[in-house]
Amino acid sequence: MIGIDWGTTSLRAYRLAGRIVLDRRDRSSGITKVAPGAFPDTLRSLVADWLAAGETHILMAGMVGSRQGWIEAPYLPCPADPAALATALTKIPFGTIQLAIVPGLTHRDTAGIPEVMRGEETQLAGAIATTPDAVFCLPGTHSKWATVQRGIVTGFSTAMTGEIFAALRGHTILGRMMADGPHDDDAFRRGVARARTEGGLLHHLFGVRTLGLFGELADTAAPAYLSGLLIGTEIAAVGPTSPVQLIGEPALCRLYTLALAEFGLQAHLQPPDLAATGLALIAEHARWT
Amino acid sequence: MIGIDWGTTSLRAYRLAGRIVLDRRDRSSGITKVAPGAFPDTLRSLVADWLAAGETHILMAGMVGSRQGWIEAPYLPCPADPAALATALTKIPFGTIQLAIVPGLTHRDTAGIPEVMRGEETQLAGAIATTPDAVFCLPGTHSKWATVQRGIVTGFSTAMTGEIFAALRGHTILGRMMADGPHDDDAFRRGVARARTEGGLLHHLFGVRTLGLFGELADTAAPAYLSGLLIGTEIAAVGPTSPVQLIGEPALCRLYTLALAEFGLQAHLQPPDLAATGLALIAEHARWT
Repeated sequence: MIGIDWGTTSLRAYRLAGRIVLDRRDRSSGITKVAPGAFPDTLRSLVADWLAAGETHILMAGMVGSRQGWIEAPYLPCPADPAALATALTKIPFGTIQLAIVPGLTHRDTAGIPEVMRGEETQLAGAIATTPDAVFCLPGTHSKWATVQRGIVTGFSTAMTGEIFAALRGHTILGRMMADGPHDDDAFRRGVARARTEGGLLHHLFGVRTLGLFGELADTAAPAYLSGLLIGTEIAAVGPTSPVQLIGEPALCRLYTLALAEFGLQAHLQPPDLAATGLALIAEHARWT
Repeated sequence: MIGIDWGTTSLRAYRLAGRIVLDRRDRSSGITKVAPGAFPDTLRSLVADWLAAGETHILMAGMVGSRQGWIEAPYLPCPADPAALATALTKIPFGTIQLAIVPGLTHRDTAGIPEVMRGEETQLAGAIATTPDAVFCLPGTHSKWATVQRGIVTGFSTAMTGEIFAALRGHTILGRMMADGPHDDDAFRRGVARARTEGGLLHHLFGVRTLGLFGELADTAAPAYLSGLLIGTEIAAVGPTSPVQLIGEPALCRLYTLALAEFGLQAHLQPPDLAATGLALIAEHARWT
């Protein structure tokens, strides 16, 4: 079968034999770069040779199932496990090929505010196979924290940490006093420690400016300090149990590992390509294989 | 005497007889619009007729005393009162005219992180005359919260609420799903209430998106909700005692009054032109009058 992880900014295709990745292709044609109506052709040209070689099933996950994607796949409410995801696939006509999209997940927090994820549920499905009871963190533009119990995603929450960092660095007075430089672990840890003191994020952010003004934070160290402040604020609000299972880019997971250590929490790095594993497992549950 | 409130984006001149404002001028020539070296000419052309009429003393406050201003006036550490401000004026040669800048204030919070204000200390000096024991809030781009005891500013803190609102609205996915509309008090109050629930700001921000996605928050109501969320987060972190003395623009002070009411806190609106009152009082302490 073919597994497709189609996100906002990237497109990954896997040719799979069970959970084994036989071949893979990475493209930058995320859904924001695909014209409306151009999804079928984009997919077909990406995997034409695999289809010619006899593949008949394609399972997709990610923002391709959002309102801005190919077709909107309804969200599945938590609690949900990989088998439930497999029963809620959105099927798409695609010639003789079996094509479907994995649903995203939704959840309501204690205040009744909705939560959503698309794509992460498939990575979680991949991780659940070996880690059925854990707190997972998928750091990024919108970090996801999910609780998994006996193989079931019981709930999750999102923190806009990555996007807020970019907005603050690019469009506030804090960014205007920063300079590029090598990543500074000490400044990062100072930021994390600051997040653990009283005062709140809106106040702590102003400290990035005043520390610079008083010569107590170098302009090249300020980005790492801000990053530590935000990630520390995220972790403090979640208050996870140890160890935290990290899924994501190695460089970003390294920062979260450092930050968690400041809280006395252990981190465990999940293997890469969990989306491929998850797609294979969901296909198994759907009896595609 | 002449009092000048010269901030980042505005320039206000007052002709004063004691604490009475005889005449005033508002200009948009804040310090970011004044070329280096052009401060003396800008001031002279603004008040030429008042000088010709016999004024001999000009006292200035605000960002004109910052590194980006006319000349850098050192900060005075808290605790400080109006009399202390008057003993720490930075004098500037200006022909036969006595010209000086009021110092900003600085403070270190319990974690040792520096705080600064420039301009607000002069408004506080004006308010202290009638309100010597209070918690003051000066909402804005960078909101200031100051504690005043027996006429002495004992400490203060800054929250970057206004600037963060602008960055989020202008440069994140939250802003892209908002539309202009009349201010919506109900949405504002919902945002304030949300700030009082668990989860933290980075998580609560994502709710602005999901509520929109689920049709539970209109795109025209989202700006007010975001504003309430941020102002509510600011107030929750400060945890002020009641009543809070508000100094600032009436429309913004109205929002803070609404938000404080959600916390069961009373607000009291200070009169306008406190900068003029403060400049007059500091000049009295300096025995200029």
